[in-house]
Amino acid sequence: MLKQEHFIHQVYFWLNNPGNENDYMALLKGLEKLVKIAAIQQCHIGVPHTASTGETVEGSYSFSFLVVFTSKDAYEHYLQDPIHLHFVDTCKHLWNKALVYDSVGAKPV
Amino acid sequence: MLKQEHFIHQVYFWLNNPGNENDYMALLKGLEKLVKIAAIQQCHIGVPHTASTGETVEGSYSFSFLVVFTSKDAYEHYLQDPIHLHFVDTCKHLWNKALVYDSVGAKPV
Repeated sequence: MLKQEHFIHQVYFWLNNPGNENDYMALLKGLEKLVKIAAIQQCHIGVPHTASTGETVEGSYSFSFLVVFTSKDAYEHYLQDPIHLHFVDTCKHLWNKALVYDSVGAKPV
Repeated sequence: MLKQEHFIHQVYFWLNNPGNENDYMALLKGLEKLVKIAAIQQCHIGVPHTASTGETVEGSYSFSFLVVFTSKDAYEHYLQDPIHLHFVDTCKHLWNKALVYDSVGAKPV
């Protein structure tokens, strides 16, 4: 289960060629390999829910990649993991935009 | 645990007055009430991890609200839940921007 102390790493990718099936599969397979990184507690590889519409909905991305870590340390380990570095090296040519939202649990002020 | 068939509803909020503690607490308390909605499987209320920087990092938001549903139907129930409708009515004056990313599990093509 998600807990407030968890670290949430959410990445959205926009493919260079959104309609190209080879590029879609190449990035999907790349993301699926990331799942094996030991530092990850949970993750989800998604695509836009096309029925969600409205002025507040961002549905233009190709993939969402949600990763949950139990700590910031685990996230740091993930970034340096050879599998992650290999993913960036071999897949970065596939996207023209990636947007990262890193969140830690909100606390009262 | 997250599963590929899960529906991921991720919302980012930008407060009108990001430095105002009353507004921060009002939105935090509003989000905490949403957690009680029965249709939700898991959720996480976050704030930006300020140490994450770089051209791909979006760290200007005030709150992230991650909600996991076991199905699209559960998501539809959530949207119509009186607790959710009350949240929008009573808290929408607090933010000037909300961005929604709704994702379903990616599949091979």
